[in-house]
Amino acid sequence: MSPADDYSVLASSPAAAAILTALVTSGPQSRVSLARKLGLSSAAVTKSARPLIDAGYLSELDATERTGPGAGRPASPLTVRADREFFLGVKLTGDELIGVVCDLTAKIRAVSHRPLRSSAVVDVLAEITAMTGELLDGPGNYRERTRRLGLAVSGDVDRASGLVRYSPFLRWRNVLLGKLAAAATGLVVTVENDVKALTTAEHWFGEGAGADSFALVTVGQGIGCGLVVNGRPVSGSHGVAGEIGHISVDAAGPQCHCGSRGCVEAIAGTSYIVAAAGTSTIDEAVAQARAGDPRVTAVFARAGEAIGLGIAAVANLVGPAHIVVSGEGLSAYDLFEPHIRSGFERQAFGAAADCPLSIRPLPFEEWARGAAAVSIQSRLVPLA
Amino acid sequence: MSPADDYSVLASSPAAAAILTALVTSGPQSRVSLARKLGLSSAAVTKSARPLIDAGYLSELDATERTGPGAGRPASPLTVRADREFFLGVKLTGDELIGVVCDLTAKIRAVSHRPLRSSAVVDVLAEITAMTGELLDGPGNYRERTRRLGLAVSGDVDRASGLVRYSPFLRWRNVLLGKLAAAATGLVVTVENDVKALTTAEHWFGEGAGADSFALVTVGQGIGCGLVVNGRPVSGSHGVAGEIGHISVDAAGPQCHCGSRGCVEAIAGTSYIVAAAGTSTIDEAVAQARAGDPRVTAVFARAGEAIGLGIAAVANLVGPAHIVVSGEGLSAYDLFEPHIRSGFERQAFGAAADCPLSIRPLPFEEWARGAAAVSIQSRLVPLA
Repeated sequence: MSPADDYSVLASSPAAAAILTALVTSGPQSRVSLARKLGLSSAAVTKSARPLIDAGYLSELDATERTGPGAGRPASPLTVRADREFFLGVKLTGDELIGVVCDLTAKIRAVSHRPLRSSAVVDVLAEITAMTGELLDGPGNYRERTRRLGLAVSGDVDRASGLVRYSPFLRWRNVLLGKLAAAATGLVVTVENDVKALTTAEHWFGEGAGADSFALVTVGQGIGCGLVVNGRPVSGSHGVAGEIGHISVDAAGPQCHCGSRGCVEAIAGTSYIVAAAGTSTIDEAVAQARAGDPRVTAVFARAGEAIGLGIAAVANLVGPAHIVVSGEGLSAYDLFEPHIRSGFERQAFGAAADCPLSIRPLPFEEWARGAAAVSIQSRLVPLA
Repeated sequence: MSPADDYSVLASSPAAAAILTALVTSGPQSRVSLARKLGLSSAAVTKSARPLIDAGYLSELDATERTGPGAGRPASPLTVRADREFFLGVKLTGDELIGVVCDLTAKIRAVSHRPLRSSAVVDVLAEITAMTGELLDGPGNYRERTRRLGLAVSGDVDRASGLVRYSPFLRWRNVLLGKLAAAATGLVVTVENDVKALTTAEHWFGEGAGADSFALVTVGQGIGCGLVVNGRPVSGSHGVAGEIGHISVDAAGPQCHCGSRGCVEAIAGTSYIVAAAGTSTIDEAVAQARAGDPRVTAVFARAGEAIGLGIAAVANLVGPAHIVVSGEGLSAYDLFEPHIRSGFERQAFGAAADCPLSIRPLPFEEWARGAAAVSIQSRLVPLA
């Protein structure tokens, strides 16, 4: 069956897309359980699952494969065939592309890195094309089952049109990246803001899976936040949401690039840490702090504290079920973690302090996986 | 038809409840438009509307009553008969009850005030019973068509069980107010946190009507915030949400009762303003500021600025379509308003500054209307 035929399986039936989405995000389930969860009749689930089984997206687990309690009556749970379709994900930074191939359940199957010597649009497109070719034609034979590419870019991105309105690290304004990359690669392309992409990956496939509310805070050059509230991502009525980096936590704090002062980002963003530490790179600042330099240690402590206050603001305002703190800045998370926690605990109001924080470093591959997760999502929920 | 019969009209049909809710919150509409909005067939709308018309909840507008564009073909829009059912709403403060009678569209029909000389539960219940009797048996003859009472209380309230877990101004802990008031008055009682009740009134019947996201910030003894995100109220996975008063905006700011420092509430809450102004009441502080005392004027300026920074945090994080700032503290809103706006504008990030702010005083009757709005909501959406 050709990819075009596969596509029609989902496009012709919202119920089929809903079934596949539920199985992709929540694992194997019986038809009865799917029917209950999706508000469909069992007959409708059986009918809609049939073409997915025929097209190779789903299979039935037989009795011997089933585990867990309540498996009394034989009910043939449905499960996703993860290798039925693959998805490319590429994260663009100012000086590097990081690419992955993921399967339908967002498991990383292959990884590639490529330096970016120029951020001119034409050069970046050439590198994306070379990278996707390398990944698809390398070991694993992914080309045949891959039609889609997700791109993740920091900055102001309009996912619906694939437009990068503004990306400071690439120095881009109004680049129609989706259309250009589709023409260059021949793939169906989705473009998303990198923090939103990572939030999608965590909400669909990670620690936030199935949560009605969830926050992902990213620490690095910028301090960002992806939010899920009432079961759906928060995108902001005026195009701005999740800007935890521009909560002011110190009236007398340092000047921020946004024009205000004392913002979380002006205390904890990588370039502000480097400036406050008086070093030339963040690695140098980390090394000095680890060597016990009290002045530089205090810079990281203050940064962690500011992040903790920002996270407490998120918990106090929207009360997520769970908050994940991550990002490339947390490669030095041993320097931040206790101060993030103490700032959070001091400022979280009442039961908001019960919100669990997961603080962990995040390899750049995870950002690329986020891009692939958005591509999977756009495959399964065309309107998302 | 008796009230019991009326109730069955809605209880037996989710579609009937959905139709009445849409008409109550969005005004007269044709059956076709209702069908489109609710995802029902026109036949289903016609069938479900019939018993509501028979029971006197809906009527048909005839052609001469219709206004507005697109009224070409006769389509008999449906409209709510607002006086078909009335709802009592009572706001409890530490020293006063404020009560209203509202119609089905939350329009206030009657108002009553009653001092509370004691906040002992038994005394408050006696006053609630006296007030509801007075309102129902006074002019307007409301008793016959009133079965429901909403109560609004500041503090930690569990709406589902009618339990007031903690209310500082009443000095109550774990009072089963819903059950006690139902027994005392013979009415169906809903209890809700006062800020959430006011947010419901604004979201269903006020400036936030129909908005996918919306925030209401209340300024007074406490600084609170009701939030609607992705079309639904935000309640917080750990029971805390909307605590804008405990966002820290000044690392060197005054000690807050929550244990932290520099919280919005520790700068802008009524008792902190009185303390900083060195007066004995808020009215005295307002009078001194209006008389031009520069020290007291600066106290209000700093308070307004802190509120503005807190509101900017809301806009930066969740991006509401619209923010209303209100509350009894804004009886002096001329002293606050320019500083709220300047704090907000300085800290709102990029397009977040486009979020419109409505800053206006709020009579106490509006809080009581919020309580009635929650009662209307619980009538129409039993699971809300």
